[in-house]
Amino acid sequence: MPKRKICVVVTARPSYSRMKTALQAIKEHPDLELQLVVAASALLSRYGNAYRFMERDGFTIAARVFNVLEGENLLAQAKTTGLGIIELTNVFEHLQPDAVITIADRFETISTAIAAAYMNIPLVHIQGGEVTGNIDEKVRHAITKLADLHLVASHKARERVIKMGEDPEKVFLTGCPSIDIAREIREDGTMDFDPYERYGGVGEQPNISDGYIVVMQHPVTTEYRAAKEQVSKTLQAVNELQVPTFWFWPNVDAGADGTSNAIRAFREQHQPRHIHFFKNMDPLDFLKVLKNGRCIVGNSSVGIRECSYLGIPAVNIGTRQNGRERGRNVLDTEYSVEAIKEAIQQQIDHGHYTPDDIYGDGRAGCRIGNLLADVPLSFHKVLQY
Amino acid sequence: MPKRKICVVVTARPSYSRMKTALQAIKEHPDLELQLVVAASALLSRYGNAYRFMERDGFTIAARVFNVLEGENLLAQAKTTGLGIIELTNVFEHLQPDAVITIADRFETISTAIAAAYMNIPLVHIQGGEVTGNIDEKVRHAITKLADLHLVASHKARERVIKMGEDPEKVFLTGCPSIDIAREIREDGTMDFDPYERYGGVGEQPNISDGYIVVMQHPVTTEYRAAKEQVSKTLQAVNELQVPTFWFWPNVDAGADGTSNAIRAFREQHQPRHIHFFKNMDPLDFLKVLKNGRCIVGNSSVGIRECSYLGIPAVNIGTRQNGRERGRNVLDTEYSVEAIKEAIQQQIDHGHYTPDDIYGDGRAGCRIGNLLADVPLSFHKVLQY
Amino acid sequence: MPKRKICVVVTARPSYSRMKTALQAIKEHPDLELQLVVAASALLSRYGNAYRFMERDGFTIAARVFNVLEGENLLAQAKTTGLGIIELTNVFEHLQPDAVITIADRFETISTAIAAAYMNIPLVHIQGGEVTGNIDEKVRHAITKLADLHLVASHKARERVIKMGEDPEKVFLTGCPSIDIAREIREDGTMDFDPYERYGGVGEQPNISDGYIVVMQHPVTTEYRAAKEQVSKTLQAVNELQVPTFWFWPNVDAGADGTSNAIRAFREQHQPRHIHFFKNMDPLDFLKVLKNGRCIVGNSSVGIRECSYLGIPAVNIGTRQNGRERGRNVLDTEYSVEAIKEAIQQQIDHGHYTPDDIYGDGRAGCRIGNLLADVPLSFHKVLQY
Amino acid sequence: MPKRKICVVVTARPSYSRMKTALQAIKEHPDLELQLVVAASALLSRYGNAYRFMERDGFTIAARVFNVLEGENLLAQAKTTGLGIIELTNVFEHLQPDAVITIADRFETISTAIAAAYMNIPLVHIQGGEVTGNIDEKVRHAITKLADLHLVASHKARERVIKMGEDPEKVFLTGCPSIDIAREIREDGTMDFDPYERYGGVGEQPNISDGYIVVMQHPVTTEYRAAKEQVSKTLQAVNELQVPTFWFWPNVDAGADGTSNAIRAFREQHQPRHIHFFKNMDPLDFLKVLKNGRCIVGNSSVGIRECSYLGIPAVNIGTRQNGRERGRNVLDTEYSVEAIKEAIQQQIDHGHYTPDDIYGDGRAGCRIGNLLADVPLSFHKVLQY
Repeated sequence: MPKRKICVVVTARPSYSRMKTALQAIKEHPDLELQLVVAASALLSRYGNAYRFMERDGFTIAARVFNVLEGENLLAQAKTTGLGIIELTNVFEHLQPDAVITIADRFETISTAIAAAYMNIPLVHIQGGEVTGNIDEKVRHAITKLADLHLVASHKARERVIKMGEDPEKVFLTGCPSIDIAREIREDGTMDFDPYERYGGVGEQPNISDGYIVVMQHPVTTEYRAAKEQVSKTLQAVNELQVPTFWFWPNVDAGADGTSNAIRAFREQHQPRHIHFFKNMDPLDFLKVLKNGRCIVGNSSVGIRECSYLGIPAVNIGTRQNGRERGRNVLDTEYSVEAIKEAIQQQIDHGHYTPDDIYGDGRAGCRIGNLLADVPLSFHKVLQY
Repeated sequence: MPKRKICVVVTARPSYSRMKTALQAIKEHPDLELQLVVAASALLSRYGNAYRFMERDGFTIAARVFNVLEGENLLAQAKTTGLGIIELTNVFEHLQPDAVITIADRFETISTAIAAAYMNIPLVHIQGGEVTGNIDEKVRHAITKLADLHLVASHKARERVIKMGEDPEKVFLTGCPSIDIAREIREDGTMDFDPYERYGGVGEQPNISDGYIVVMQHPVTTEYRAAKEQVSKTLQAVNELQVPTFWFWPNVDAGADGTSNAIRAFREQHQPRHIHFFKNMDPLDFLKVLKNGRCIVGNSSVGIRECSYLGIPAVNIGTRQNGRERGRNVLDTEYSVEAIKEAIQQQIDHGHYTPDDIYGDGRAGCRIGNLLADVPLSFHKVLQY
Repeated sequence: MPKRKICVVVTARPSYSRMKTALQAIKEHPDLELQLVVAASALLSRYGNAYRFMERDGFTIAARVFNVLEGENLLAQAKTTGLGIIELTNVFEHLQPDAVITIADRFETISTAIAAAYMNIPLVHIQGGEVTGNIDEKVRHAITKLADLHLVASHKARERVIKMGEDPEKVFLTGCPSIDIAREIREDGTMDFDPYERYGGVGEQPNISDGYIVVMQHPVTTEYRAAKEQVSKTLQAVNELQVPTFWFWPNVDAGADGTSNAIRAFREQHQPRHIHFFKNMDPLDFLKVLKNGRCIVGNSSVGIRECSYLGIPAVNIGTRQNGRERGRNVLDTEYSVEAIKEAIQQQIDHGHYTPDDIYGDGRAGCRIGNLLADVPLSFHKVLQY
Repeated sequence: MPKRKICVVVTARPSYSRMKTALQAIKEHPDLELQLVVAASALLSRYGNAYRFMERDGFTIAARVFNVLEGENLLAQAKTTGLGIIELTNVFEHLQPDAVITIADRFETISTAIAAAYMNIPLVHIQGGEVTGNIDEKVRHAITKLADLHLVASHKARERVIKMGEDPEKVFLTGCPSIDIAREIREDGTMDFDPYERYGGVGEQPNISDGYIVVMQHPVTTEYRAAKEQVSKTLQAVNELQVPTFWFWPNVDAGADGTSNAIRAFREQHQPRHIHFFKNMDPLDFLKVLKNGRCIVGNSSVGIRECSYLGIPAVNIGTRQNGRERGRNVLDTEYSVEAIKEAIQQQIDHGHYTPDDIYGDGRAGCRIGNLLADVPLSFHKVLQY
């Protein structure tokens, strides 16, 4: 029997981190053939050349799709999505996959969903059924309605996907594969490398022997004009606290320019001695950095997902993660210098938390691989009510 | 107070027919400004130059979007959709509408939904919540998840949209505006013109003084290779019955080529004397033709919707209308020459039915116009569970 | 030494006919590998499914590019060209050719030229340096300036390309490969098949035992609104002459719709008994049909090129072939019913002419194959003055 | 009589600088209406937000076209061009210009040329007929063959365009409008502002009271992998000379990433105290900076054109300006640290030169405006031999 060809389209660095163990499981499964397609910002140096990590991790890239239209405004996001459809049809025509996997809810992932659905290729959606609160919300649930198979991260997510009219037999609780990498970190998260040495980055190199915090703040799409102002609050708060800080560059989104510009302007003006800036890291190393840090600050989903599993204190700023299930490790705050400072201080004082398993038990990748090998694939479906 | 700018994107002839009274109501409402965008097959002569009917009906076209990629295969449908997004963003940027309306569930209508949603323009969906059974099904419900306001045609449709997690306060039962035109026909449907004379068409001109049937059969997307075979059954059945017949050309879809080719081949071979072929008609005239006919045959939604309201017998062939609510006027059948012949004969023998109001009471257009003038518009939403 | 990979992009039926022997020579050359890419109208059934002839002739298609945007207006031509570039870059990236060949001067062929030139792939242009008189003129010479190697059909063409500033060492007189097929016809052109039987077509089947004429008239791009009117003159002239006629359908161009509609309307109205309509033929069969006919009428380049080599009388209507070198066989005429009638009658009376070798000696294909195997390839060039 | 609508498409910052006085002349001419379209990198913050300078200078932007596809490789350039065609057809359809102007030879400018030529809009080309030596060379001459009217900068350029087969009556020597701005600088070029204060920029602020040099080095497209290495030679040479230096950021091109990365890496490593980095300046201020500097270094055309007119010493590195006519002010050099150092020293020692008028007398803008008002416009042409 020929192997099932599973085509996974990765469009951004965080999506790769999230899927890594699942990709590994697909690649190694005797009945599956992995077709890894890298698209959009995952190919661009401005966003950390994520494809290089994939190659280094031993994955072969079956096709590359350049579809990011510059402009960093809402028009450009829509056009990037349109171009993605045009380009991905060629890729799917060429690869002839038995199933296509689209990950989560970034705006450009609907290109994958439409190209596959319109070409009658069974579509698998990873991480549907979650609730946040901006354009991602619309994208995520629209993809659910285009998808034939749903691999979700939490109990509540599964319930929601079924309520939306999907056949319960097509909705599987696998947990989030991002948690898998965290599993070994939960057991042993020793910081066994020097981040300055391994990853370079820019800025001064503060002494981290007494601890440090990690910041990762993305622009919020529907408020993109405010992106510059939003991140400025965090920059000021962190500057006033004078705690050694690792700051990670944001990913591509409308408004990324505002965020990046704010960071650059801040650096030029303040030349902060206690902040070091990184573009990106290998996911495992990144989790080690988190595990050994005192707190994560910003609005990345990492603070909600991986950090709840690892018990790392998180300060979650603003609306980007609204509606997402969270563990006891999360402290929510407004875009306010004082509020952010207080929250960081409170989390540093509290120290690490007892772990939660909301988003998985650390065995999602393997579960996904096995499922994809066995589950019946089809591209016909009807609303279940 | 400035008028609300309501941008309606019409991508096909039947969508125009369906929306006509709503367009009229928007155009005439003192607080609304209609921005009519014509796209895709509605601009092409192969599909009947629908835009000319709009102009003749007194509508001004604000923008034209040519985005149909030739190929009549599934790739071309996906690429047409991608191009639609790219082009529509320009149109919306230029028109700056307060709300965008997308109609029903044709594959290319998701372009409208994505362009509007990604540009943070409130999106209104007409005729969500229905159930059919092919790619339209996925498209329709995905658009529901991208839309901010839902104007549905039936009670059941409203229930379904709410079940999918939409805010009940955003889901309005208006009925289907296509029924509005049927209202005057229900009252007085006299055939006051000669279809041969007014619409030309090709083929012999059978004598219709003893009655005639109407055929309209579209290819079913997900089985497009079979399109030719499917329509051949109907052609043969009709040929054997020798009843005077008006056959309407199918619209653009993957497989249209199969359908068209089958019809052309049949004409060349049989030179049927009792069948006349039309490309398209003014919606009102078309309803008069139906009202004065003995039966509609094929898989058009007209047989389910307008004909239930008018009590016209319908023979519905195959899966295209699966799941759609139907009145007592519909007789379903397989793709089988014998079954089709029998069903047609049975419907002719039965004669017209008592009307049903499932899809509206004939006042949907006006209701839609008033709603759009008053309802709060927003582009933020969250799953309601 | 690895074989040189020669990628030929064919975008239309007539281009295939023209290149066939060169394609054969490339395919069979021990040092070359043919990568045949089929694009645009060559893939569409409306234009005769040219790709099927290629497959039947034993060619393997390396990639298919659907890029024809419907609309049949000037915008659509430009957009088709833009899409062609976007799609062909993917194809070239995938095939990694050592050289790309673009043929002649159809509007969409500049996509091939731009994609190759911008990707630093040596570009070979077939049939530059000719002079006509519409948008083709601009396209042809612009491609000359993008191309690195020029394989031209006539002495005058070579002179012109060099005058335009190209390096004489990069401009080769090969003759036109379309003439190669004509070579065997010149020697023995017996009509050894029944065109009705082999190609079907539509319309009555006039008795051709006393001779017939062939008509092939394309719309002239820059006058596309006039296309309908122009072809109507020819239709009327042919109708009045009542000579048995084989009429060939036009290819895709802005205005094709005008031409096609005129033909269809004429057929419906006049139901002409002496005209039979064909979509397309195998090139060899087409030349046999010409050779055994009394005269070719219209504006196809076949009348100028192949027919001068074969000595077949040609009536060339209008401006489409302006500036093209012609042999003694051509009689030029205006868009006038009377003038066309007279010219046809005059050519029928004259009978066949002595052949000319302006466009080649019938060995172009082989010469092209050998050249491509030996010539140095580069993608750097500078104006030669 | 209605005003002639002249649509100018500006795709990059340097093109704007070059055209500014011509734009002004068109805008102010009583018989002309300026339609300014801004596209590609001229809209992006990464390349200096050129559109803001246009607005500040009092121009109204008629349309914006976002068509830069990220990737900074050759594929992305080709795709950007394809997208440009698709988008510009909409713009031209909307604006209905009487003539379209395309400027010089950047890769994406052929989009303007194709969209206009295919839509039968008379196309005016500014600065054809020059000779350089990379992809620009192909683009420039291909545009000449698509254009209907040629406004050239030098006598030799005019000769070349005519030799290429253009009608001498359609080729006008206007001089280069970029020189117009230089005219007032030639008369009085006092440095009347503090560049650090007005333009910010990054890096140390060397004392420039004893003179400074200016560097502007773009990647050379067809050697883009070498871009990083090439600019590194200049960086090292400048670093070793320790002369106060104003370094200007490169514009968008394949390889820009290599150049930018090299500059960033150099800054991080050497933290040079005598170099200040600017993104871009108002054209007039930039010329003042040049006029008061000792020498321009790099491969910008400014060193060849404006600086010959102003008599400013130029060190021209590498092949980018090969074939361009040059005045006595230019010293050519290889990509070699030693050669660059020597050349800079030699030019500093020599001091300013006597001005040349090769590229114009400083009245090009006005001449262009008058020409466009009077010249007959057409879109039909034929090779002149």
